[in-house]
Amino acid sequence: MERIKPRTLSGFMELLPAPQTQFERMLEILRHTYSLYGFTPLDTPVIESAEILLAKGGGETEKQIYRFTKGDSDLALRFDLTVPLAKYVALHYGELAFPFRRYQIGKVYRGERAQRGRFREFYQCDIDVIGDGKLDIANEAEIPAIIYQAFTALGLERFRIRVNNRKILTGFYAMQGLAEQSGDIMRTVDKLDKIGPDKVRALLLEQGVSDQAAGEILDFIAITGDNAAVLSALEGYRGRNETFDQGMEELATVVKYLAAFGVPEDHFAVDLTIARGLDYYTGTVYETVMLDHPEIGSICSGGRYDSLAEYYTDKKLPGVGISIGLTRLFYVLGEQGYLNDQLVTAPADVLILPMTEDLSPAIAFATQLRQGGVRAQVYSEQKKFKGKMSYADKLHIPYVAFLGEEEISQGVVKIKDMATGDQQALPPAQAVETIAAAMAARAAGKPIREKG
Amino acid sequence: MERIKPRTLSGFMELLPAPQTQFERMLEILRHTYSLYGFTPLDTPVIESAEILLAKGGGETEKQIYRFTKGDSDLALRFDLTVPLAKYVALHYGELAFPFRRYQIGKVYRGERAQRGRFREFYQCDIDVIGDGKLDIANEAEIPAIIYQAFTALGLERFRIRVNNRKILTGFYAMQGLAEQSGDIMRTVDKLDKIGPDKVRALLLEQGVSDQAAGEILDFIAITGDNAAVLSALEGYRGRNETFDQGMEELATVVKYLAAFGVPEDHFAVDLTIARGLDYYTGTVYETVMLDHPEIGSICSGGRYDSLAEYYTDKKLPGVGISIGLTRLFYVLGEQGYLNDQLVTAPADVLILPMTEDLSPAIAFATQLRQGGVRAQVYSEQKKFKGKMSYADKLHIPYVAFLGEEEISQGVVKIKDMATGDQQALPPAQAVETIAAAMAARAAGKPIREKG
Repeated sequence: MERIKPRTLSGFMELLPAPQTQFERMLEILRHTYSLYGFTPLDTPVIESAEILLAKGGGETEKQIYRFTKGDSDLALRFDLTVPLAKYVALHYGELAFPFRRYQIGKVYRGERAQRGRFREFYQCDIDVIGDGKLDIANEAEIPAIIYQAFTALGLERFRIRVNNRKILTGFYAMQGLAEQSGDIMRTVDKLDKIGPDKVRALLLEQGVSDQAAGEILDFIAITGDNAAVLSALEGYRGRNETFDQGMEELATVVKYLAAFGVPEDHFAVDLTIARGLDYYTGTVYETVMLDHPEIGSICSGGRYDSLAEYYTDKKLPGVGISIGLTRLFYVLGEQGYLNDQLVTAPADVLILPMTEDLSPAIAFATQLRQGGVRAQVYSEQKKFKGKMSYADKLHIPYVAFLGEEEISQGVVKIKDMATGDQQALPPAQAVETIAAAMAARAAGKPIREKG
Repeated sequence: MERIKPRTLSGFMELLPAPQTQFERMLEILRHTYSLYGFTPLDTPVIESAEILLAKGGGETEKQIYRFTKGDSDLALRFDLTVPLAKYVALHYGELAFPFRRYQIGKVYRGERAQRGRFREFYQCDIDVIGDGKLDIANEAEIPAIIYQAFTALGLERFRIRVNNRKILTGFYAMQGLAEQSGDIMRTVDKLDKIGPDKVRALLLEQGVSDQAAGEILDFIAITGDNAAVLSALEGYRGRNETFDQGMEELATVVKYLAAFGVPEDHFAVDLTIARGLDYYTGTVYETVMLDHPEIGSICSGGRYDSLAEYYTDKKLPGVGISIGLTRLFYVLGEQGYLNDQLVTAPADVLILPMTEDLSPAIAFATQLRQGGVRAQVYSEQKKFKGKMSYADKLHIPYVAFLGEEEISQGVVKIKDMATGDQQALPPAQAVETIAAAMAARAAGKPIREKG
């Protein structure tokens, strides 16, 4: 038979069992955390009508999207989870209760240029709160607080959520008489971290910004310090633009609430350079950086928008949301050696080796283990003892249980701790208890472990 | 602004929050059950090279597949999880330990003609065990035993796993001198349930089967009764064909082991009419029927195959697997009123209504609840009391907690059980305990509840 060389497309993450198990654990923690905050899980099709997905249009998206026809239908794969959410809320508006709080964890598709650490298929893990007509600002503090909890539950410690408010930026540029160009200017200012202030100034001048205004802009984005200091510096601009003043008040409120929602001061920072590229953010915006890896960029971003679904409905649906790009984050964590290899990645906690023709005692013990929440595999292949043990070794299965004539007649099972080599013969119920306790202790670790 | 009418493609299931929550619970139970049996989770790309997915070729698949180009690449969406598994095992052969036990739960795509209850995007929930060179027959009994456990955990009771062995059929048709035509004949015999024996006979004659052989075939597939009776009737054919005899022994072994693996006799049945359309099954085959809804067809099917990945590798990789088509099953369960509506589908267990300007006490209580595993939402919108209560009502949130000046000064929280209307003021820790216990009791139910 002619064979085809097996391969996985480049830009598509396909993990071996051990890292896949770590990835699944992270998904589970995110699902659990999001649920604890009263978000409902949502699942929408990967394929949508191209007309729906491209309602907004726009350059990059249109170039990267996977679009194709099937029969007469012009179809496309979703490139984020926000557009499907907008469609969902517009379509099911009458059947939802607002504020509508949903989380969605799913794969999205972007045909980007393939490069190391960039993926064409990747998981987004989103939470959004959508209001009907209006939405209280408290949500703008709660959303990053949930992300703080989620990262903490994952084991990430050295990260910071950067917060800004688009109204401050819009108002500030209006003060400079640069309202029209503010989008372009923000995109330039966004490069500050990468290219430094001198090059930002040069670019601004190229864009036709006056020397004086460029100076004002650089002074403005140079405002740093702790949150109180930044908020106080902003006071100097008060009274010159209504939008600015409103943004300033919103930002102060969000900062106050963030503390109330339990985010420690060192885990969030007002940062006036954050703008977020997307056009639809209108208020608070977020980015999240790993303090030891600023080069990675934001690992979790989002913000407040005024019109989630304006392309599909005339209902005013303001919202706030944030998204973790888990595939890329997982890749980076792996590269940096941040994945906790102390956690069990074996498919089973116990491998049971039946030493008799009759499998019944082994199966009965496996059933007891499973009832106790312990993952058990009965090894039923005809192999030499050494081959069976090397299977357990290769998979890093924590315990092997032996059930031979002798054990069966004595009503015990012999269990071996594969890490220490310790063996003990115990009555089955006690063996289950011993293993369950040991596994619970090992499961207490978090999937991310930063280097000390 | 010109608006686009929001819509979801036909043949794509998109659930409202309450049924989505039920669906998620079923996914969770399947993940948990599969894990307890020592299967490792796998996730492969939705998009693969068309060449890989279509290595086997074949009519229906090729017509239904979503295939498209992006740049120079000829791509397609996976139409099952077995082909990606074959690719995965062939590609990562050197890094896996065999038997390789994996589960995969994911969406697959088939551009079928749209009709009620048929989906173009649907979840498959697969388990497979792959051996390297050989695989013990015990696996062929364990796989349906896991499915029995999975359905039982979901709450399904009136179902039966039908078991047969392809070698018996191949051997039997060889005895009749019909080896060449056996594929076509099995497809005809497979229609027995739908069209009855007379029409099957007519079709067989049309296919060129002799009158005598048609009689033998109808006698053969008329063998019914309990498992012992069927196995005993098969004995009458022993000694005439080696493959038949081998199949008979395998079937007897699987039946014996099925009982050992804990499947009650009334939940599985030897059924000589089961063949499964796919060409690659070579031994034991399964179908699963809902006893009260035979019209639905099989809700879970699979079997033993000798060469999982022959299109990609010369390694002999025999395996056995089974697949639940969860999207269709969920649809049918909903239609039949089998989804347990006693289970909580609200996004939160408790809605906390802060009655003070300062949200801190409400947030502190929410944190306590979450630490106790209770899902809590702080309602922060500026609404009238009635509006807040109707939000809880509409979402069927089980508890509402009130935190006003009075409660705060007394160190209590007032909780209202929305089902009974009972209210009580309790210290926060006690409120958490009370709610956690009530929610645990409510979570004990299973997602499927058959009508009595």
